[in-house]
Amino acid sequence: MTAPTSRRRVVEWVGGVPRAHEDRLIAEEPLEIRIAAPGSPDRRLGVTMRTPGNDFDLAAGLVLAEGVIGGRDDLAGIAYCTDATLTDEQRFNVVTVALARPAARGWKERSLRATSACGVCGTDSLDEVEDLVQRLPERGEETPSWSPADLAALPDALRRDQRHFARTGGAHAAGLFASDGATVVVREDVGRHNAVDKVNGHVLLEGIATAGLALCTSGRIGFEIVQKAVVAGVGAVVGVGAPTTLAARLCDRTGTTLAGFARDGRVVVYADRAGEVGR
Amino acid sequence: MTAPTSRRRVVEWVGGVPRAHEDRLIAEEPLEIRIAAPGSPDRRLGVTMRTPGNDFDLAAGLVLAEGVIGGRDDLAGIAYCTDATLTDEQRFNVVTVALARPAARGWKERSLRATSACGVCGTDSLDEVEDLVQRLPERGEETPSWSPADLAALPDALRRDQRHFARTGGAHAAGLFASDGATVVVREDVGRHNAVDKVNGHVLLEGIATAGLALCTSGRIGFEIVQKAVVAGVGAVVGVGAPTTLAARLCDRTGTTLAGFARDGRVVVYADRAGEVGR
Repeated sequence: MTAPTSRRRVVEWVGGVPRAHEDRLIAEEPLEIRIAAPGSPDRRLGVTMRTPGNDFDLAAGLVLAEGVIGGRDDLAGIAYCTDATLTDEQRFNVVTVALARPAARGWKERSLRATSACGVCGTDSLDEVEDLVQRLPERGEETPSWSPADLAALPDALRRDQRHFARTGGAHAAGLFASDGATVVVREDVGRHNAVDKVNGHVLLEGIATAGLALCTSGRIGFEIVQKAVVAGVGAVVGVGAPTTLAARLCDRTGTTLAGFARDGRVVVYADRAGEVGR
Repeated sequence: MTAPTSRRRVVEWVGGVPRAHEDRLIAEEPLEIRIAAPGSPDRRLGVTMRTPGNDFDLAAGLVLAEGVIGGRDDLAGIAYCTDATLTDEQRFNVVTVALARPAARGWKERSLRATSACGVCGTDSLDEVEDLVQRLPERGEETPSWSPADLAALPDALRRDQRHFARTGGAHAAGLFASDGATVVVREDVGRHNAVDKVNGHVLLEGIATAGLALCTSGRIGFEIVQKAVVAGVGAVVGVGAPTTLAARLCDRTGTTLAGFARDGRVVVYADRAGEVGR
């Protein structure tokens, strides 16, 4: 398998003076995800550019976010492809997700919808996530209390576990944290969305309850980041950066707490329907 | 059309003290891109979450990057959908790209390849871009000289035109710059890749020569950012952030100059086959 970082000779210019040295880059490799369902030929879900490592977490999180599975029980297994025709470089870039049932709810409907829709808008996108969430198993209603200071400190807690970022400056991270600030899991990836999928896949595969946890991301908070959190049953999303309009609207719809610009004892709360922050 | 930014009431916590005020968020809305070719039914290329504005630039840049068109001559026109069944909110979220010829070179082949491939790896991805570039029209060979100080100053030049970022803190930007530092075009978007597509679409539609220009991105430099630059004929890519392994390998393959961590008079050069930097 490709290492998550690799060395490269570079020339650094400071004030017009060149200095040759070795630098370390974050690895980026394509991962192809295939779906194997009983009684059907294997299908290709897609290819994502990712940093190698925790690939099964990534695949599990992605199929959950895409509605291919509704929960852990829909999974029969996840494995690297054993196709003998693959080169060594290719072998660890193909993951097959085996489903426990002939057809997962949701996936086919979503695909059909995606090709037959006559137009899209933000509201349609919100409806789609809502449909997806309503098809998921019931999750416990938990509304923890978040101290603003604890929320503002999550990015620092995240950074403590960002090994690849510390070495390359080129990796995003996502993590799940309890309301007392305890770290549940942190994952890194060259892609913000992949990092979130890896986190969500991990808690899915380990059977960890997510309702009382907050997802912290090292970047900005777009619609898809919130979508992934909501589908994974996470109740709060916190970012180092800014949220988008559609991310905030999705939080309004789903009762998700949303905070941005978390740093240095400061945090901006964009959505907090249950009054969880500073209670 | 949805405005590129919008207001929202927020609560900002600083040192445990809440302050309610109005904040401005970067807009995020889905854009569906359709392809209309003479003699074929319209096809849906995909949906991207983007910040409204310069949508035709975005569509033009995306179809170029995806190999649907090889150049300006393959385009017959770009328009918002006039389907009467669309709501107002949907109407400006659908763009149809009309092709001048029955079938664009490349697109069909790439799609077929995407579903029939038995595995993928970084090398395959590099091969694919190389194939795509070889099918494009010949571009003039220009190897300008880049002063390290000028490269390091590009992010500041970019930031001067980042209106949405200044208001929201949530927008990425990309721009094209001449070797004397002159700004050719800057575009903003909630997505890094969209910002690059908007820039490339603009120069395509305006017929601006790109070979002697540098693309500067406000974020990190992944494989797809370099791919888009290469397909648009741009010879140098500069970023505020770090490049990835695969981005550096693609620059090696295509003779593209690659610089990262550009800021405060400092820049790290990762690839410079033609010796353009500091010549």
